[in-house]
Amino acid sequence: MTFELLSVGTELLLGSIVNTNAQYLSRRLSELGFNVYYTTVVGDNPERLKAALEIAAKRADAVITTGGLGPTGDDLTKETIAEYCGLKCVMDENSKRRIIERFSRGNMYMPESNFKQAEMPEGCIILQNDNGTAPGAIVETENCKFIMLPGPPLEMKPMFDEQVIPYLENFSDGVIRSRSIRVFGLGESAVDEKLRDLMDNSTNPTVAPYAKTGQVELRITAKADTVDKAKAMLVPMQEKIEKILGDRVYGTGIDNSMENVVVGILRERGLKATCAESCTGGLIAEKITRIPGSSECFDCGYVTYSNVQKADMLGVDCDTLKKYGAVSEQTALEMSRGARARSGADIAVSATGIAGPGGGTAEKPIGLVYISICSKNTHRAFKLKLNGSRENIRERASLHALDLIRRCALGLELKI
Amino acid sequence: MTFELLSVGTELLLGSIVNTNAQYLSRRLSELGFNVYYTTVVGDNPERLKAALEIAAKRADAVITTGGLGPTGDDLTKETIAEYCGLKCVMDENSKRRIIERFSRGNMYMPESNFKQAEMPEGCIILQNDNGTAPGAIVETENCKFIMLPGPPLEMKPMFDEQVIPYLENFSDGVIRSRSIRVFGLGESAVDEKLRDLMDNSTNPTVAPYAKTGQVELRITAKADTVDKAKAMLVPMQEKIEKILGDRVYGTGIDNSMENVVVGILRERGLKATCAESCTGGLIAEKITRIPGSSECFDCGYVTYSNVQKADMLGVDCDTLKKYGAVSEQTALEMSRGARARSGADIAVSATGIAGPGGGTAEKPIGLVYISICSKNTHRAFKLKLNGSRENIRERASLHALDLIRRCALGLELKI
Repeated sequence: MTFELLSVGTELLLGSIVNTNAQYLSRRLSELGFNVYYTTVVGDNPERLKAALEIAAKRADAVITTGGLGPTGDDLTKETIAEYCGLKCVMDENSKRRIIERFSRGNMYMPESNFKQAEMPEGCIILQNDNGTAPGAIVETENCKFIMLPGPPLEMKPMFDEQVIPYLENFSDGVIRSRSIRVFGLGESAVDEKLRDLMDNSTNPTVAPYAKTGQVELRITAKADTVDKAKAMLVPMQEKIEKILGDRVYGTGIDNSMENVVVGILRERGLKATCAESCTGGLIAEKITRIPGSSECFDCGYVTYSNVQKADMLGVDCDTLKKYGAVSEQTALEMSRGARARSGADIAVSATGIAGPGGGTAEKPIGLVYISICSKNTHRAFKLKLNGSRENIRERASLHALDLIRRCALGLELKI
Repeated sequence: MTFELLSVGTELLLGSIVNTNAQYLSRRLSELGFNVYYTTVVGDNPERLKAALEIAAKRADAVITTGGLGPTGDDLTKETIAEYCGLKCVMDENSKRRIIERFSRGNMYMPESNFKQAEMPEGCIILQNDNGTAPGAIVETENCKFIMLPGPPLEMKPMFDEQVIPYLENFSDGVIRSRSIRVFGLGESAVDEKLRDLMDNSTNPTVAPYAKTGQVELRITAKADTVDKAKAMLVPMQEKIEKILGDRVYGTGIDNSMENVVVGILRERGLKATCAESCTGGLIAEKITRIPGSSECFDCGYVTYSNVQKADMLGVDCDTLKKYGAVSEQTALEMSRGARARSGADIAVSATGIAGPGGGTAEKPIGLVYISICSKNTHRAFKLKLNGSRENIRERASLHALDLIRRCALGLELKI
């Protein structure tokens, strides 16, 4: 079964927004084992929308549209598809009731035009919208299925995941389940090398890598007749990967960002962490406090950009700063020790380095970063040589610091 | 002249990357006054690429492709377009020389396959690539122009800006120049209301608003016969906008992000700032230190998440915390005062609030944030009621804090 995505919206053609919907759907469909051969963007123009629809319907077994389901006269996706399929749009009373409820819950005035959103192509499958007012719809014709989703990603994604995937599973040989595994401390090519045999020899479940800044995400996807069987197939593959990559695997849950994993581990073990930041400038603290509930494991962070403040706020010895410089193993060590002592946290990390674009020397080039960790049982520093932009260097340094907190809290080998 | 964008790359269809190239080009073309009616994504497949090309060439006066110019067998954009136009690809010696130079400069081994990148459709206009190895090309046929750009955004964007825009200006009535104006503290609808008349009555230059989180960007675009004339036309429009929006306009330069503007102002005036952060958790410090050279105006920041640390690190009175709570005007005031006193900075800001998703009460709901500013001459706090996700609330709170630093440093009225 081949798919085509058709994103509808003049704001996309003007470049006001980036088409993240197409990426999301492309990725999900490929994970489900379906092919996407084309994606198209068209504006809120009935003739051009109709023309794009005709081309897409001829090329694909299923067309997924996003956008154009809103209440205004510009929103024409449903009407255009209905017309193309020779269907009338009729009021769906259930959708109408849900729209009224939504507005009254928010104590908002509801313009009559909103009811347009409840007029659905006759005989379609209605996709409820739990996060907005516009329902989605599926229209099936002999040659092509049209799946209409709302444009806002916060409405589109759950509708696709919760309602469209179960529908699509009917057209797949079975059900499909996938799991994401996050890897830190190995580059994409290193992960590829280590998993090459496993990936080449796996057809079900499959394993696919995606590179992110400083990390690799692996997605295992299994196909089976039942959900339980598919889920069960994921387990041994995950175990194989974990055996090969060891503790480089840091996250296997649903929200498996590094900061979420770290906050989860700290909370679970009743530990507190702190950070002393120079080159990362607050990024480590900011990442930790992104996570709701981080106040249980994080009391404070120190952003010590100047030498004076490294001494004042963290008690770094002025002689250390003079002798070795701010970007040195010694300073990193004293920063983490000072942060732990002053905050009373169980684990302290520090980061000091040269993020660029200026400030590099032959001896201490841009990308040189020292990370240190201090706990009851350990006090160590690591030297990083990072590449890329200032943003990249800061991002990678903060991930290394968080990974050290994870390793320390779990009693794993401390390494970068 | 109508345009169509054709992005080539299987990684786009797999959803491994998001199509930011299409957004960039869409936006730039619309700023230049050209229409984009469709954008299409197709994989590295010669038949489907050819089919997409045929459709695009029929619909548009010019097709801009991105991707598929690399050295591998998968990279087929140039070859497919040449074939479609009935042209041979021939070695361009200048491009070949540049590729060799690039590799030898980096001391890298160069696979022979790289020379494929220097084989260009005969008679094409060659677009030099200063940031990579693949040159771009323009092929003109009677009915359609094909503009081929490399896929990596860091190569594509400068090539488009520096070489394609001057080329396109030949097909426009003149040259086009634009300028971005950043506005903070007014919502999109408020900006729209204030500028509605101006926008409706302006055809050259035009003014278009783009909403960003907590901010609005206005883009003024002028068309004239010469660059100087176009640039000169931007000035009175900018002045009109600044007159209407007053000090809500915070940035008019090239990199006019709030943090860049604030760091620029502080450096220019020889002032230092600091921040005491609770709900923003390091985001204010992180934003400031994103900017190269921020060490001149920023020595340190305090992330005080717990009450104990608000007292310890900033000297907030325990009675204040007990009586008014951590999220209160009083605590915010004492945080900024303490941060200023302890850091020795000229200006200190603080932020304390409830970012959610938990922790809200009827009296202190999610989104309630107090921001305070303290300088030699002023010590004030502001109450914010913000909407949205945790991320959104933190982002907006940090922008308000930065805007207060800006206002304080410039001697403007302090307001939110």
